[in-house]
Amino acid sequence: MNKITVKLEDIKAQTQKALVNHGASERVAESVAEAVKVAEAENNKVCGLYYLESYCNQLKSNRVDGSVMSEVKKPSNSSVYVDAKNGFAQPAFAAGFEMAVRTARENGICLFTIAHSHTCTSMGFFTSQIAKKGLLGIGATVAPACVSPPGGNKPLLGTNPISMSVPSKNNDVAFQFDQSTSAIAIGKIRMAASNGESIPEGWAVDKEGKPTTDPNKALEGSLLSSGGYKGFGFGLMAELLASALTGSLSSVNAPPLKTTEGAPHDL
Amino acid sequence: MNKITVKLEDIKAQTQKALVNHGASERVAESVAEAVKVAEAENNKVCGLYYLESYCNQLKSNRVDGSVMSEVKKPSNSSVYVDAKNGFAQPAFAAGFEMAVRTARENGICLFTIAHSHTCTSMGFFTSQIAKKGLLGIGATVAPACVSPPGGNKPLLGTNPISMSVPSKNNDVAFQFDQSTSAIAIGKIRMAASNGESIPEGWAVDKEGKPTTDPNKALEGSLLSSGGYKGFGFGLMAELLASALTGSLSSVNAPPLKTTEGAPHDL
Repeated sequence: MNKITVKLEDIKAQTQKALVNHGASERVAESVAEAVKVAEAENNKVCGLYYLESYCNQLKSNRVDGSVMSEVKKPSNSSVYVDAKNGFAQPAFAAGFEMAVRTARENGICLFTIAHSHTCTSMGFFTSQIAKKGLLGIGATVAPACVSPPGGNKPLLGTNPISMSVPSKNNDVAFQFDQSTSAIAIGKIRMAASNGESIPEGWAVDKEGKPTTDPNKALEGSLLSSGGYKGFGFGLMAELLASALTGSLSSVNAPPLKTTEGAPHDL
Repeated sequence: MNKITVKLEDIKAQTQKALVNHGASERVAESVAEAVKVAEAENNKVCGLYYLESYCNQLKSNRVDGSVMSEVKKPSNSSVYVDAKNGFAQPAFAAGFEMAVRTARENGICLFTIAHSHTCTSMGFFTSQIAKKGLLGIGATVAPACVSPPGGNKPLLGTNPISMSVPSKNNDVAFQFDQSTSAIAIGKIRMAASNGESIPEGWAVDKEGKPTTDPNKALEGSLLSSGGYKGFGFGLMAELLASALTGSLSSVNAPPLKTTEGAPHDL
């Protein structure tokens, strides 16, 4: 396979250009393109350029509003709430970020919520920005349901990641985790299916809820939580923080992230 | 086996009496006895009467100060910090609780930390009280190190539980989880050892860090995190929130919880 090397700044510039060409404002495109660049820099392929086609398609179909201005509110002394108004999550976060940092510094802690946005792609992208301000960042989000509860066969939760970024003395990221609360990302099962490989027990169940090592049966069925009921507990924690507290859609009601047509994702 | 039935109020009264007889003040004893009663009501044997002997022994040896007054501080608008001064965790929590609830209601969120206390026993005991005030409670604590990182053989984290309690409309607990971030509680491995049973793979490693199904080798070695590296991530989250943020001991420095002699546990 031939390898080509692309500079990170070129990735950002080309991504920004593509987003603008499909209807995003310069401001919104810059914000999303930065997230794509960071994902590529961290070798996070799923959240990088791989997502760009989907972003563009959804801008084109107006499923994502590429030029909307997010609305930043302060519902209480120590909370900042951003209504993304069915736009991208990255510019919505950027809109409230400085106020959230100031609020956390002034009060010791801040509840910072983004409502009614498209997917956040990588949670760590957001919590790492918090750590770079010298603050401890913990984040959670929901995603379309694909994880069934222990013993069940009906998906109730998304992969619902939780991330944490810890600042270093010089306001960089000392330590970070960014992990789904499912046993594995669904992409790994898709890869196994296309390679004709089996998957380990504990990743998924078939549509009857029986453990399976067949990736095709897993894709018809549902994923399992990491560590069984414990991961399901953490998935519920993400669900309550990211959906119930924001008034956005819960995992069971969230439509697939990459489909082009339909109502906004409202996450 | 003969069964006897004991009323919950009798459990509380006798527990309180025993604690006072071993040196606790009435106020402190009432607070700890309530936690024992609630644990027994919830069939949480490990955190109920089973712990009382240890509490009494540690009062007797002065390892736990049974009559100290916790100091409540408000380091910032939205945080309440209680220095338990090497006393029990339950009266320290009680000392700051009303202020923490008021702070959360006024500001939207409150960071409520208890420092320099004896073990909290059950985290859910605390977060459930938060839910009964109509607030969402999330709690974490550290414990003496017994969990090694994925691929390692040196315990770095404790079982480090995280709990969440969600209020119902009528200010009761609608939903709660209270779970260690290790694959299993160490008590389950001790039980398997004394019953001559094997343990499932994934619970523990031997002292060389090799997976084991022999509970005796597991007890010489270390536990594993729930779901591998993901549970270890959540264990680190508990570690940072409960130890680094409070200035209490980290898991690697925490002495065994039930030993009678030694410096205070300082959790």
